[in-house]
Amino acid sequence: MITYQTKIKLHETDAAGVLFFVNQLKIVHDAFEVLLESIGFAVAGLINEKDFLLPIVHSESDYKLPLSVGDPVEVQTVVADLGETSFTIAYTLLDAAQNIAGTARTVHVAVDKATYAKIPLPAELRKRLQSL
Amino acid sequence: MITYQTKIKLHETDAAGVLFFVNQLKIVHDAFEVLLESIGFAVAGLINEKDFLLPIVHSESDYKLPLSVGDPVEVQTVVADLGETSFTIAYTLLDAAQNIAGTARTVHVAVDKATYAKIPLPAELRKRLQSL
Amino acid sequence: MITYQTKIKLHETDAAGVLFFVNQLKIVHDAFEVLLESIGFAVAGLINEKDFLLPIVHSESDYKLPLSVGDPVEVQTVVADLGETSFTIAYTLLDAAQNIAGTARTVHVAVDKATYAKIPLPAELRKRLQSL
Amino acid sequence: MITYQTKIKLHETDAAGVLFFVNQLKIVHDAFEVLLESIGFAVAGLINEKDFLLPIVHSESDYKLPLSVGDPVEVQTVVADLGETSFTIAYTLLDAAQNIAGTARTVHVAVDKATYAKIPLPAELRKRLQSL
Repeated sequence: MITYQTKIKLHETDAAGVLFFVNQLKIVHDAFEVLLESIGFAVAGLINEKDFLLPIVHSESDYKLPLSVGDPVEVQTVVADLGETSFTIAYTLLDAAQNIAGTARTVHVAVDKATYAKIPLPAELRKRLQSL
Repeated sequence: MITYQTKIKLHETDAAGVLFFVNQLKIVHDAFEVLLESIGFAVAGLINEKDFLLPIVHSESDYKLPLSVGDPVEVQTVVADLGETSFTIAYTLLDAAQNIAGTARTVHVAVDKATYAKIPLPAELRKRLQSL
Repeated sequence: MITYQTKIKLHETDAAGVLFFVNQLKIVHDAFEVLLESIGFAVAGLINEKDFLLPIVHSESDYKLPLSVGDPVEVQTVVADLGETSFTIAYTLLDAAQNIAGTARTVHVAVDKATYAKIPLPAELRKRLQSL
Repeated sequence: MITYQTKIKLHETDAAGVLFFVNQLKIVHDAFEVLLESIGFAVAGLINEKDFLLPIVHSESDYKLPLSVGDPVEVQTVVADLGETSFTIAYTLLDAAQNIAGTARTVHVAVDKATYAKIPLPAELRKRLQSL
């Protein structure tokens, strides 16, 4: 499990006074970028050096507690599923009292960078995801 | 069905060259704001005048085709489910060739503005959502 | 002069209840994308086909009136300055009553896409900007 | 001087491959929120408990070096000017090599929360800003 700490920023809230729902997914993707970097597949390297990308084909979020500007949030990130050509990351957002404020999942497929065609997960990436 | 027309803006894309997945949900919420306004429940009125809010408790998105800066997008929006205290909006994003680029759903609950406790959908709102 | 019409979206506001200041610049860049497209230099073409880019080296914004979710905004866009290697776009944001809600300027330089070195403004682009 | 450390996130870049200019201001506002919290005026408290707000009436940014996803950034924040009813914050963004990637300024005025009329900077806030 990878954990990522952040705080709700003013620009992540909206005029209803709390976190805009879309920004929960933005925050979990920040956590995913930390996960990728921790296993040697930082996003910059994917975009600039590799011949594959890992676009998201499905995302979902549940919202349990409203989060306000300044609230500390811990995102706990695990690999929930590892398929032939895809994998699923599951995220749990905890507030300062360690209550679950929200959860999310993102499903990623490996695609060839040139053709955007689905390909098997590169072996080294699979091994690193399995190790988490 | 309510339709909403937009174009992918540069700031909605990322360094991988296409729409950042989170921004698909941002776009469908723009469409939802148009829907609300069309039935007399514009967001500004909800926030400033009503005693209830309609926070999102669940969202999900599927991504079928990459969208690039400048691509026209049509969002078709329908009421997919109407419960006692909640309702579900379903969105279909069509590209210029009328292919489905993505789909999304948001589940909203009615809550008391002061206590954030779940309440039955206000009757007038229910009637208007039913009429769509 | 190019005009661009929009409405303040919920996600452009923050918990203080009005437009988050940064999003005024986001909106004027949307207007700039419309301007570029109107003179045949749409952003997608710049990124994918041309050998130059037009990065922003300076931006500034003044904020006169708070804007709230649902407020209609008209952005009036003019070419304020046209230099050898750079140009300046000036923006005026008008609210529903045609009062000036804000103003902004962006300064763009032409750079070689491969080296990011400053280059003279391409002649065709200069001609088109001059025509506005 | 207050320093704030971050990394460029994928969603802060655009299809031209680097930080979208607007997001430099978003990042410096994150640094400003840290500054406010460090002097006991966290944004949440301003919005919920105080009778004044500190809206931005002017912002400007200069962009010196392109920043890419994953790039570490340090924001150095100082109080550049302290007037009767307003103050100016100046920001310097340093990349990993301590080169200046960009600079920014935001000008804030104190306003009465109910009327949005300009008021003198509250004494305690002035004292704390002076101490930085």
